[in-house]
Amino acid sequence: MDAGGGEQLRLAEVRDQLIREEDSIVFALIERAKRPRNTPAYSAAAAAAGSLAEFFVREAEVLHAKVLHPFASLVCVNDAIWKMYFNELLPLFTADGDDGNYAETVALDFACLQALSRRIHCGKYVAEVKFKDAPQDYSPPIRAKDTNALMNLLTFTAVEEKVKKRVEKKARIFGQNVTLEDSVGKQDGDACDSHCKVDPKVLSKLYDMWVMPLTKDVEVEYLLRRLD
Amino acid sequence: MDAGGGEQLRLAEVRDQLIREEDSIVFALIERAKRPRNTPAYSAAAAAAGSLAEFFVREAEVLHAKVLHPFASLVCVNDAIWKMYFNELLPLFTADGDDGNYAETVALDFACLQALSRRIHCGKYVAEVKFKDAPQDYSPPIRAKDTNALMNLLTFTAVEEKVKKRVEKKARIFGQNVTLEDSVGKQDGDACDSHCKVDPKVLSKLYDMWVMPLTKDVEVEYLLRRLD
Repeated sequence: MDAGGGEQLRLAEVRDQLIREEDSIVFALIERAKRPRNTPAYSAAAAAAGSLAEFFVREAEVLHAKVLHPFASLVCVNDAIWKMYFNELLPLFTADGDDGNYAETVALDFACLQALSRRIHCGKYVAEVKFKDAPQDYSPPIRAKDTNALMNLLTFTAVEEKVKKRVEKKARIFGQNVTLEDSVGKQDGDACDSHCKVDPKVLSKLYDMWVMPLTKDVEVEYLLRRLD
Repeated sequence: MDAGGGEQLRLAEVRDQLIREEDSIVFALIERAKRPRNTPAYSAAAAAAGSLAEFFVREAEVLHAKVLHPFASLVCVNDAIWKMYFNELLPLFTADGDDGNYAETVALDFACLQALSRRIHCGKYVAEVKFKDAPQDYSPPIRAKDTNALMNLLTFTAVEEKVKKRVEKKARIFGQNVTLEDSVGKQDGDACDSHCKVDPKVLSKLYDMWVMPLTKDVEVEYLLRRLD
């Protein structure tokens, strides 16, 4: 977010940011899908991968210190993102195999991890905006440390369904093979998904199972500290 | 390229690689366009920018040593790419302004530079494939060090026009604002270019004025050494 310390975060701005981050995530996954799984990249370069992991897990800690309350830097789910990415997501959108391009692979993974982390930690801004808009709704469950009540306040199923559909559509549009002969419109159909560089269903699953739940975890963690 | 030392490079493979790199270049430019020009990023962080420049300019030197002839590493136009990118291209697709996000900006620039460099240095593979297909055509101008004749042999205006149209179309498709309401097809018209995250005309200009000429420079430089 570009909001300086003195500025009020606006919901429209935060939403635009989240929607823009969807493009970045789809682009990053499409780029990573150029390479096969390349599992040895992490064992062969274990030391480098280790420091990359450490760097990544720590990175978000300093990211939000300027704009938000000082405790914002304490809310960080990068370790969960790291595990999700390598254990769950990567096998869903990369081909089996090993082409030896380990340095490039690790760089592409890192771009995916950063895009996911940025999107998920935007939850802090979302939570701050929502709290400011309705402190009377949020303060009682915060004081009661009622995680479930907060999660319910933060959950809008209709919006989540729309986000899932949109990221799926983005994967379909951005992951198509563009040729001068094809009309663009025809690539919008499900029939073409097998030609997409990343299966569009993987994107809706990613958002459904991991991005939106982790974002809400960030929102809840942030709110629980909001009245300290 | 993934071809190992013993494998014959195939033209179809090289072409697929070049087409895939178009997507990477378009994605990288769209991502960079998220941020304004941010000129102070380079003067403020002059030392870091300097080492980045040095790293980038040297990078391609080691990239092709395994697959091609040893002299391939001598053919490198990264200094020309660097100058073109910052002096010519960047002002064409970023907004005036300074939002203070210098670290992110430099990382996004670097992704653009790398994608451009990969695409342009693929000229070595293109040249090798073309030479192998018709050594009888290429050997006389190589021996005569006739740069103009080589450039003519390597120039296919109809193909270049097609490439320019295709990258412009890619910028139009990948740079659109995807919403659930819009049909995809309507984004294919020129009327929507003002809503694209990067002006599609910038992409055809980039290829016309810099990417294809620099690629041919790489091809000629490679061929001139081919019979040494």
